Amino acid sequence: MAYNLLKGKRGIIFGALDENSIAWKTAEKVHEEGGSFVLTNAPIAMRMGSINQLAEKTNAKVIPADATNVEDLEKLIDEAQEILGGKLDFVLHSIGMSINVRKGRKYTDQNYDWTHKGLDVSAMSFHKLMQTLHKKDAMNEWGSIVALTYMAAQRVFPDYNDMADNKAFLESIARSFGYFYGKDKKVRVNTISQSPTPTTAGKGVKGFDGFIAYAEKMSPLGNATADECADYTLTLFSDLTKKVTMQNLFHDGGFSNVGVSQEVMESFQ
Amino acid sequence: MAYNLLKGKRGIIFGALDENSIAWKTAEKVHEEGGSFVLTNAPIAMRMGSINQLAEKTNAKVIPADATNVEDLEKLIDEAQEILGGKLDFVLHSIGMSINVRKGRKYTDQNYDWTHKGLDVSAMSFHKLMQTLHKKDAMNEWGSIVALTYMAAQRVFPDYNDMADNKAFLESIARSFGYFYGKDKKVRVNTISQSPTPTTAGKGVKGFDGFIAYAEKMSPLGNATADECADYTLTLFSDLTKKVTMQNLFHDGGFSNVGVSQEVMESFQ
Amino acid sequence: MAYNLLKGKRGIIFGALDENSIAWKTAEKVHEEGGSFVLTNAPIAMRMGSINQLAEKTNAKVIPADATNVEDLEKLIDEAQEILGGKLDFVLHSIGMSINVRKGRKYTDQNYDWTHKGLDVSAMSFHKLMQTLHKKDAMNEWGSIVALTYMAAQRVFPDYNDMADNKAFLESIARSFGYFYGKDKKVRVNTISQSPTPTTAGKGVKGFDGFIAYAEKMSPLGNATADECADYTLTLFSDLTKKVTMQNLFHDGGFSNVGVSQEVMESFQ
Amino acid sequence: MAYNLLKGKRGIIFGALDENSIAWKTAEKVHEEGGSFVLTNAPIAMRMGSINQLAEKTNAKVIPADATNVEDLEKLIDEAQEILGGKLDFVLHSIGMSINVRKGRKYTDQNYDWTHKGLDVSAMSFHKLMQTLHKKDAMNEWGSIVALTYMAAQRVFPDYNDMADNKAFLESIARSFGYFYGKDKKVRVNTISQSPTPTTAGKGVKGFDGFIAYAEKMSPLGNATADECADYTLTLFSDLTKKVTMQNLFHDGGFSNVGVSQEVMESFQ
Repeated sequence: MAYNLLKGKRGIIFGALDENSIAWKTAEKVHEEGGSFVLTNAPIAMRMGSINQLAEKTNAKVIPADATNVEDLEKLIDEAQEILGGKLDFVLHSIGMSINVRKGRKYTDQNYDWTHKGLDVSAMSFHKLMQTLHKKDAMNEWGSIVALTYMAAQRVFPDYNDMADNKAFLESIARSFGYFYGKDKKVRVNTISQSPTPTTAGKGVKGFDGFIAYAEKMSPLGNATADECADYTLTLFSDLTKKVTMQNLFHDGGFSNVGVSQEVMESFQ
Repeated sequence: MAYNLLKGKRGIIFGALDENSIAWKTAEKVHEEGGSFVLTNAPIAMRMGSINQLAEKTNAKVIPADATNVEDLEKLIDEAQEILGGKLDFVLHSIGMSINVRKGRKYTDQNYDWTHKGLDVSAMSFHKLMQTLHKKDAMNEWGSIVALTYMAAQRVFPDYNDMADNKAFLESIARSFGYFYGKDKKVRVNTISQSPTPTTAGKGVKGFDGFIAYAEKMSPLGNATADECADYTLTLFSDLTKKVTMQNLFHDGGFSNVGVSQEVMESFQ
Repeated sequence: MAYNLLKGKRGIIFGALDENSIAWKTAEKVHEEGGSFVLTNAPIAMRMGSINQLAEKTNAKVIPADATNVEDLEKLIDEAQEILGGKLDFVLHSIGMSINVRKGRKYTDQNYDWTHKGLDVSAMSFHKLMQTLHKKDAMNEWGSIVALTYMAAQRVFPDYNDMADNKAFLESIARSFGYFYGKDKKVRVNTISQSPTPTTAGKGVKGFDGFIAYAEKMSPLGNATADECADYTLTLFSDLTKKVTMQNLFHDGGFSNVGVSQEVMESFQ
Repeated sequence: MAYNLLKGKRGIIFGALDENSIAWKTAEKVHEEGGSFVLTNAPIAMRMGSINQLAEKTNAKVIPADATNVEDLEKLIDEAQEILGGKLDFVLHSIGMSINVRKGRKYTDQNYDWTHKGLDVSAMSFHKLMQTLHKKDAMNEWGSIVALTYMAAQRVFPDYNDMADNKAFLESIARSFGYFYGKDKKVRVNTISQSPTPTTAGKGVKGFDGFIAYAEKMSPLGNATADECADYTLTLFSDLTKKVTMQNLFHDGGFSNVGVSQEVMESFQ
């Protein structure tokens, strides 16, 4: 069911850990649609995952990079252009982690070194990435940059902890940088606010299974899967959405605009 | 540059008046992408416009219908399914008018008969359309319904007058009906909030040229054109956006998230 | 615990049916704070309720008026100014009803005569009220107009039915009219989006008890009561909020910005 | 014109630099309304400003504290309770600065050490403050915490630079912490999104005068002043707003909900 939506387009995909990753699914689909790309992840994530399998399958090179390190990003962007044979058309940022979450620290009892580190990895990295792309003039006109986010940036989900604030910061960066990148180079920048997704990272969060079940009952069309998120990302990378920019786009089966569903209410009656 | 995005899909397109219409452009592109459809418009609009040329070009039938009249809608939906050979996959609602605007009545000096009439045509028609589709079970699972709207539903643009309130009502109907249509039939419902567009209808609004120029200066990527809106609509009709529902999607070159642009500020310094 | 916040201020309060009404509580508190006012309600609502007790207690006159009838509104506004001895400083619009809800019609099976009637009573009445005040120049500078609304205007609560769309329309009117009333007369217009409240009207809605319990569990501070809503309204009528206008203000113990609470999640784990 | 709104209430006010500061005006008004408080600011800001005059006038003690330093905050909160004779009822956070702005670095050419430092001062400090208050159980039930913010958290104002992202982070902290503080201690947390205000800090931003003029023309009631912001803050500290929490409240003469004003449009026609 390929449409050739991304024929001839070049890009970089961050964050494909294993086959449950949204970035993994996106890479597969971008490949099917005719796009070529470089895969990247943090060196430590690469050791834990299976990115090389994906690289083989999608005929892609892998370049390790710490997304919080500007020098790594510079090298990545230079090499990607060299490998792919020109400027870039799309970039996917699918990176996030909170040490406070991992270590079970409550939101009201943060270790601030961890908070800063989580912010740097989950959100500041997005600015660093775009600043480096922008300085190197590495994106083609009408290129498209997408980062993945979650609705905790708007409303509180208690277990999401400091990732909520990181996502709010990330979405703000998308708007702010989107303004300048649009003006300067006609590049668009958006975030996709995705349903809770049972990725390897997601499943690590406390209470994740209950939460998935709850979201499923709240969403008129059910939770959006990683595969469906990859499909949606294709549309944002394609030439059919050239004037969509600085937006936070909910991809969630309707969850975001449901106050309460009949199913959830039934538990309270 | 066709992708076969809508191959085999069937639908109804409301509101193609003439070649400046967003609905006109959408019909052309849906046709290119392999979709088939029935065109419809109010009898009076059909006399003023040139819909038959479009019908010929896109190999479509035209069925006149007053979108505020449930009987007309019933007949339209029955005939469309008969002509197209099955249930529907997509519907575009691109209908709006305000008598208060046309007659130059200020927002603070409304004629309420006209206000009710404008609401009925511009917004209640969307409910009537969906209620009729729903009762007749005329949409396929994972079908997609789109209505066009404008950001005046969120923020005041003085000359937009009572159309602002109509659009707020329309967007609310999209959410409300989207909930039930999603639950009941897996049909998604969204609105596209489009840049000001120089359609024949749009150009009739007082101060429209100045407003287009202003919006152009505010939008980092410039105003979205009717053609680009048609492209975006294709993505929402396609299978790539199955879990996007109950959303109001800004298609505006970034305008909606700009507080002020450098260009506009320069006029004030 | 009176502060004299409204000393010398004059106004009109719509919608005090009985002692459970938010408008009733507001009238009591405005009286305590030194404000004087005229009470009004639809003739039929007056027969069902006990507004005369309130009038006596707050030393107020009662003037029946159908808020959908411009002549009634004109008469009300003229008489109110005469009785109170000058132009008005505050107005409370607390009016809403849906025949579709009352008669148990589903959202996907509306009777459109009822839909129009409900819209006229619940939302168009707010425009009519302000247009009449504006034409008669009946508000003092820095006067304050408040209407009560509900979050169903933003997110779907299935049992709220067509009242959701009515509230979206009402909130849009607040913004649109707020713009012009601000420019022309320095009058501010806001809506308060209140927790579900067990008023006599509210309690009539299907599933209301379960819904109250759910909202209580979702709101970090618990549901806001009618009494607390009256307190909040005092601040919006006072001189301390002169630059707050065109806003929809959530008064809900935090519900609106909670994605899910720990208590609600526990039911799903 | 005092109402005794805050009689007997105790608090801490951060950020009163000089008589143009919103925090300064707030301190004066809180004093008039019967509240007592400790004033605090960063040691360096205290040397530049005139906080001691304010302290004398409002009968307040001054305790220097670096709001990014948890030990300083602990000491401040301990001493404040000792001086004031009990737990706290209100706290104002009016702190913000960006080194990138000061040094004229573009948003697309950030020095990330400065970005992190600005974030720590402008936003993380708010979390640190609340975490310290929460751990020490230093707030009374139904206490109120307010931070000042700006609409750049939602929409881009190019010269606001990385402060936009800081404010988005700050507002997210208000929601997240507001959830837990509400549940745990019935304390409410809100942000006020204030008109651009010619404070000593604000006036340092490039293009500020033009921006103030633009905002004035966009706002139906004109820009909100520092004095008016102080008035509004009083209502949020008072017992009249007990169920308002986790909200971002626009105090801006209507700016936030205006798409374009007639005055601004006239420049484009």
